[in-house]
Amino acid sequence: MGVKEILNEASNNSFAIWFLIGAALVFFMQCGFAMVESGFTRAKSAGNIIMKNLMDFCIGTFMFVFLGFGLMMSEDYLFGLIGLPNMGIFTNYDHFNYSQFVFQLVFCATAATIVSGAMAERTKFSAYCIYSALISLIVYPIEAGWVWNLGGKGWLQQLHFVDFAGSAVIHSVGGVAALVGAIIVGPRIGKYTRRKTGEVKVNAIPGHSLTLGALGVFILWFGWYGFNGAAATNNDSLASIFMNTTIAPASATVVCMIYTWIRNGKPDVGMSLNASLAGLVAVTAGCASVDALGAFIIGAVAGVLVNVAVSIIDNKFHIDDPVGAVAVHFVNGVWGTLAVGLFATGRGEKVLAFADGSTYAGLFYGGGFKLLGVQALGILAIDVYAAVMMFAVFEIIKHTIGLRASEEDELAGMDISEHGLASAYADFLPIAPAYMGESAGAVDLTGLEPAKLNLAATGSGNENTLTKIVIVCAEEKFTVLRDTMAEIGVTGMTVIQAMGCGVEQGKTGRYRGVNMSMNLKPKVKVEIVVSKIDPNIVVAAARKALYTGKVGDGKIFVSQIQDIMRIRTGDTGYLALQNEN
Amino acid sequence: MGVKEILNEASNNSFAIWFLIGAALVFFMQCGFAMVESGFTRAKSAGNIIMKNLMDFCIGTFMFVFLGFGLMMSEDYLFGLIGLPNMGIFTNYDHFNYSQFVFQLVFCATAATIVSGAMAERTKFSAYCIYSALISLIVYPIEAGWVWNLGGKGWLQQLHFVDFAGSAVIHSVGGVAALVGAIIVGPRIGKYTRRKTGEVKVNAIPGHSLTLGALGVFILWFGWYGFNGAAATNNDSLASIFMNTTIAPASATVVCMIYTWIRNGKPDVGMSLNASLAGLVAVTAGCASVDALGAFIIGAVAGVLVNVAVSIIDNKFHIDDPVGAVAVHFVNGVWGTLAVGLFATGRGEKVLAFADGSTYAGLFYGGGFKLLGVQALGILAIDVYAAVMMFAVFEIIKHTIGLRASEEDELAGMDISEHGLASAYADFLPIAPAYMGESAGAVDLTGLEPAKLNLAATGSGNENTLTKIVIVCAEEKFTVLRDTMAEIGVTGMTVIQAMGCGVEQGKTGRYRGVNMSMNLKPKVKVEIVVSKIDPNIVVAAARKALYTGKVGDGKIFVSQIQDIMRIRTGDTGYLALQNEN
Amino acid sequence: MGVKEILNEASNNSFAIWFLIGAALVFFMQCGFAMVESGFTRAKSAGNIIMKNLMDFCIGTFMFVFLGFGLMMSEDYLFGLIGLPNMGIFTNYDHFNYSQFVFQLVFCATAATIVSGAMAERTKFSAYCIYSALISLIVYPIEAGWVWNLGGKGWLQQLHFVDFAGSAVIHSVGGVAALVGAIIVGPRIGKYTRRKTGEVKVNAIPGHSLTLGALGVFILWFGWYGFNGAAATNNDSLASIFMNTTIAPASATVVCMIYTWIRNGKPDVGMSLNASLAGLVAVTAGCASVDALGAFIIGAVAGVLVNVAVSIIDNKFHIDDPVGAVAVHFVNGVWGTLAVGLFATGRGEKVLAFADGSTYAGLFYGGGFKLLGVQALGILAIDVYAAVMMFAVFEIIKHTIGLRASEEDELAGMDISEHGLASAYADFLPIAPAYMGESAGAVDLTGLEPAKLNLAATGSGNENTLTKIVIVCAEEKFTVLRDTMAEIGVTGMTVIQAMGCGVEQGKTGRYRGVNMSMNLKPKVKVEIVVSKIDPNIVVAAARKALYTGKVGDGKIFVSQIQDIMRIRTGDTGYLALQNEN
Repeated sequence: MGVKEILNEASNNSFAIWFLIGAALVFFMQCGFAMVESGFTRAKSAGNIIMKNLMDFCIGTFMFVFLGFGLMMSEDYLFGLIGLPNMGIFTNYDHFNYSQFVFQLVFCATAATIVSGAMAERTKFSAYCIYSALISLIVYPIEAGWVWNLGGKGWLQQLHFVDFAGSAVIHSVGGVAALVGAIIVGPRIGKYTRRKTGEVKVNAIPGHSLTLGALGVFILWFGWYGFNGAAATNNDSLASIFMNTTIAPASATVVCMIYTWIRNGKPDVGMSLNASLAGLVAVTAGCASVDALGAFIIGAVAGVLVNVAVSIIDNKFHIDDPVGAVAVHFVNGVWGTLAVGLFATGRGEKVLAFADGSTYAGLFYGGGFKLLGVQALGILAIDVYAAVMMFAVFEIIKHTIGLRASEEDELAGMDISEHGLASAYADFLPIAPAYMGESAGAVDLTGLEPAKLNLAATGSGNENTLTKIVIVCAEEKFTVLRDTMAEIGVTGMTVIQAMGCGVEQGKTGRYRGVNMSMNLKPKVKVEIVVSKIDPNIVVAAARKALYTGKVGDGKIFVSQIQDIMRIRTGDTGYLALQNEN
Repeated sequence: MGVKEILNEASNNSFAIWFLIGAALVFFMQCGFAMVESGFTRAKSAGNIIMKNLMDFCIGTFMFVFLGFGLMMSEDYLFGLIGLPNMGIFTNYDHFNYSQFVFQLVFCATAATIVSGAMAERTKFSAYCIYSALISLIVYPIEAGWVWNLGGKGWLQQLHFVDFAGSAVIHSVGGVAALVGAIIVGPRIGKYTRRKTGEVKVNAIPGHSLTLGALGVFILWFGWYGFNGAAATNNDSLASIFMNTTIAPASATVVCMIYTWIRNGKPDVGMSLNASLAGLVAVTAGCASVDALGAFIIGAVAGVLVNVAVSIIDNKFHIDDPVGAVAVHFVNGVWGTLAVGLFATGRGEKVLAFADGSTYAGLFYGGGFKLLGVQALGILAIDVYAAVMMFAVFEIIKHTIGLRASEEDELAGMDISEHGLASAYADFLPIAPAYMGESAGAVDLTGLEPAKLNLAATGSGNENTLTKIVIVCAEEKFTVLRDTMAEIGVTGMTVIQAMGCGVEQGKTGRYRGVNMSMNLKPKVKVEIVVSKIDPNIVVAAARKALYTGKVGDGKIFVSQIQDIMRIRTGDTGYLALQNEN
Repeated sequence: MGVKEILNEASNNSFAIWFLIGAALVFFMQCGFAMVESGFTRAKSAGNIIMKNLMDFCIGTFMFVFLGFGLMMSEDYLFGLIGLPNMGIFTNYDHFNYSQFVFQLVFCATAATIVSGAMAERTKFSAYCIYSALISLIVYPIEAGWVWNLGGKGWLQQLHFVDFAGSAVIHSVGGVAALVGAIIVGPRIGKYTRRKTGEVKVNAIPGHSLTLGALGVFILWFGWYGFNGAAATNNDSLASIFMNTTIAPASATVVCMIYTWIRNGKPDVGMSLNASLAGLVAVTAGCASVDALGAFIIGAVAGVLVNVAVSIIDNKFHIDDPVGAVAVHFVNGVWGTLAVGLFATGRGEKVLAFADGSTYAGLFYGGGFKLLGVQALGILAIDVYAAVMMFAVFEIIKHTIGLRASEEDELAGMDISEHGLASAYADFLPIAPAYMGESAGAVDLTGLEPAKLNLAATGSGNENTLTKIVIVCAEEKFTVLRDTMAEIGVTGMTVIQAMGCGVEQGKTGRYRGVNMSMNLKPKVKVEIVVSKIDPNIVVAAARKALYTGKVGDGKIFVSQIQDIMRIRTGDTGYLALQNEN
């Protein structure tokens, strides 16, 4: 062995350690996904989304051990399409490639975890377990084998398709599964409401913790150095991968900030965080084969793409993707894969050449359309395959055990309905998202009959009386109540978060195996004072707005007050109620 | 030096870097513990638990530097039991093994940090500092030397006891200390209440942030790749350690999910997160000596064990362990240590053989009972030693400076009472945990005297009057009030989180050295409307339920309302109050 | 090549991987900074601070790529002061030192990110982007080149100034920029209030999440192993760096705990977390050249310094630094730089000697004052340079686009005003920080005219009437209302968080590009019951306290109640209102 061979061997040994460190970093991305997905969805389903993220990794491990790894990596690889599984992990203790296994496993789990965000807050947990398992068992391993089979026998490998760390193999597949899933499961209740005009109103449903979401993004970016870099085998390559993994997301984030600043008048925080991920996804395929300028442009395009895609998906197609998984992983996974065909320098980690010896570089680097064509073919094949598979998976689940949670469960939140978890944040007073302005519009008050309240003592509906009406009702009814009150001329109200406590029990929760009775139900207490408006009308209209016929519709209390003053003007009595606030 | 020696030396150099990276990962586990423990306890003690986690590491560093490292690692090791300390770290600048020191230090801190969770929310901070210091100073280093003395002179080392990364040495010791501590300090107020029948009711006290808890678990799992892998010295071994460190927790988590799903009807999020840790703890001893199948089984058993243990500890022994530290670290630490005696393949990181040359493998791998016997002896010796030492430590603290915070301090929360921290979450409205349904039962109303309210204007206790009674009281009194009201026939109430603002000052907090007066105290405002029930009875009963004789008992306001309507039925007046909402 | 050279080369290759892993850890510190800064500031600006932390890295990347790296690292380095930029990153694909670039970039971003915390909650985002860009573009690269130019041509390098990982180059510069910025931008509204006596009252403005802040500190500490260790080139050195990076912060934290315990009577959580960072900053310069004892002392001093500095900056100079960036990074950056001149052992990573061969060790290690003098000169030059540059930058921004947000924007929070983000925590009920006791004092009631309420039915201001006055007003007015009520003799009140819902719209938010109307505005509902105090006085005084003349001043409702009971004494009616609670 010469000096060079010895140094090579030593270097390989060092990179073998890094390979595993990289795998640990990729595992840590599970934490990032869990934080991003829970941060950008609602508190009432936070436990559920955590559980899904935990379980896709854990269930996925089972699946990948028993079948997936074999389908993907087997040396007996049939027709460039699929491997013959074996149980080497159990039987071949001394010579099994544990490094590869660990590495491939954490990558596989990444593909599975992408889906949960897009389908969050309304997908049954049992359905989730099944489709998540199938992704790790079959869907991912097969297409991943096309590109990354260890023996180099995958059909896309043979065509020299380039996807260094998985823009196509992982992100576009996770993203396309998310897209198919989000379409089939349908939007969350209240996400798209139909106006009287028939027009669809798109509502924002803000996530419950932006800091948690940001934490997730930072963790993902950190982990991505492992994701993109783990497979590097020499130092120059690793350094350039790190550089690209830094420049592309930075570029995407800045461009997105500028884009939203120009478009909406203000730089958008949530979209900028999404853009960081979009830039990372986009540079994943080419991280070992593009240069700094390529990474810049790939990132910049990703920063625009993620905005356009989120907007089209939400506003045009009305597909509800709470965390933007489709825009980030599918759209930018595709872009990143194609971008290799544009920006590959023809040098890099593994200097490749096509079989006929022609230049192995992107369109803008003198390689012509050849590589771009291969990339286009590859991404098309992979995503069509994944879409078809996932369509079948979701449809079968939908028509057997059911894909979507019941309306009641969804409104109550997935935490209590799926896991018996009363609240992921037991010590904090929750606020109904309804508060944030989603509106279902006023109820139709045609032919409303006034109530017959006992107001004998004071009379009603004249300038000399002041009547206070207190309405205690379910949170989700607040917006319709508000709009109905506005319709009959009520100009102001005070809203308070309350808890209704009844004799019969509410749902039973469970914490660490101990039962918890929860007979306090979240309510809204709305206080209105009227003078000339007849309280009988107010009460009747409120009842109409709130009536469902079920226990829990609430109560209305009527009492008299003596005077009122508007602070700004000093007006008292009737005058204090004319025009607003 | 031949090629092989050169490559070996180069590999050793590489693994020396990894050894330190691993140590950094183990340090990061401190963050994981801090997040898990704060997430799974209440918001009012979040700052305290953070401080404890920070301090066990920082104080532990002092202790380990000055004595602990010597006791454990000294080359002058007496009778296989204890090292003669030296101050090499200060005096032997050029040849001191800094790597070992850093590595052993972060391990030591892990043992110390386990205890804080089990004793959370009621242990005095000063007591904590002392026992935490003693763990790092004496308790841990002595038993750790038995197994990991650098010169191989520990008596358990000499018996070929296997605990690669510390199921026994760290986790079972931390866990047994947690067990002894939790017993001696006693349960949190409200955790176990005695029913009138004499039966003990076990109450759930949910943690304040499941997402924080989950973050901690993910961080711990990530850090565990360093914890289990740092001491590996070749690539095959490291890869197989990583694989086992992935498979065992995944297996535990899935099994736990299924277990809770079957047992409680729903998959439990909190327990599944605990199970991940249980699987990690269990595979820690054998991570370098079991195969994939062994890891699977070790994890699966851990997933069941953690459930059974939590349930027995809580429901049977009534030991209050808020975060499940005993079930996770002690029970699974013991299991993991024994499991080596069952599943060790006889190959692995260091191929060992007993002195007599007999097979060094577990029971199920053809090694007979020999290794199992050694493992059993080792775990027994270690945990009995640790239990005795910690019993002494806790008892001495208890009878000198005191172990447990005062009842008043505990109810107020450890943040304000121990650290003058008004709230760890200053911008959010807190909700009393009482809300979640813990119940102390109604007070005894025998011989209750009606109040003598001034209700002249309207009369009372008949179907024609509607009286509104508003009670403002301390949060922790809410459940007894609720149950007492139910006892006298009140069927519904509205509960609102409020703040009472009085003239005299509340406790004084301090933030970054600046005094904060906090004359707003958290209160609950309960609104009740009665018709036929005499308000004089309601007020008298409420007073009886709430009376303690201390300032802050609250006030009761009585007023008249004119009408009430139940939305569902449209009933008004008296009728609207009959049966419930 | 001999065996030694081969092993050296192999070792260099391994450390080259570690160099990049270290860079990834330093990147992760961005996450730590984001969490610390958001945790220690208010919820209403959490999105803004996240965005700033994200953007300083992303914008900084642009700046550093295009100019900064060249200014700092160029081989054409003029007069020891500044490099001639080149575009090697784009043009020299095959030989550009990507490793160095990535490493220097993440370091540069650290300097930039320090500033955002000190200027949090009141600095315009556009101004932030500009000054942050300038730090990465010019300010940092120039002084960093003095110490770390790759060709060794910086003038401080030539003097053998020691700053291994950047106590001076990064932390003191970030800190001095923070200091200059905090002075020029001025304190947050409400941080310092002037009493009637003219004396300045220092108010605490607690951060919104201590657990988030603690998470950030742990992440920073973890990342610091990369920050300090990345540039190590052999194992002994790396190990000793890790040891020092552990001992110094541990020492600082314990000393700070003891210091606050003695000084304030209770160990302070927030300050202890700050102290960990202070210890890390202080050991950064000398981490490769001091021994364990030196690290202990450096840390211990840092633990005191951070307390003293925070106190002087806040209480004496009234400079508002919400997160303590100046005390942590500037003060301890200076201390750490000087400490090398005291504690350097003269051995370490790079055994250096002065040009004249004189001993290269600190004052306490036999080196005399020479090294200390160099260190003092270096830190002086660097910080004066940085202060002057940043003064110019901030002043120019102030007088062009403006540095500070408008008062209205600041009160509303930077999230909604700068980013259209309704809330970073959409599902939780916020609490006005005003609640925590900040006080503007009562309004002057001289010549107050009683209101003319319609109280005919019952009379008022005598022991036989009980009048309930409900005031709904803006949160930020609460303290003045409270103090004014106390002035007229009101002894107790109940305060409830409410939402006012008016007809006209509030600000419009935007979430992921979708508009959100927010016509619910946070209000406080204050309930007072009086008997002998004339309600006309109460209402008039309340109006005076709350009046601003703008829409949103609120309303006052007056009604009669029938009776009241104080639970503790059983007193009813008038008696129940005499003296408190």
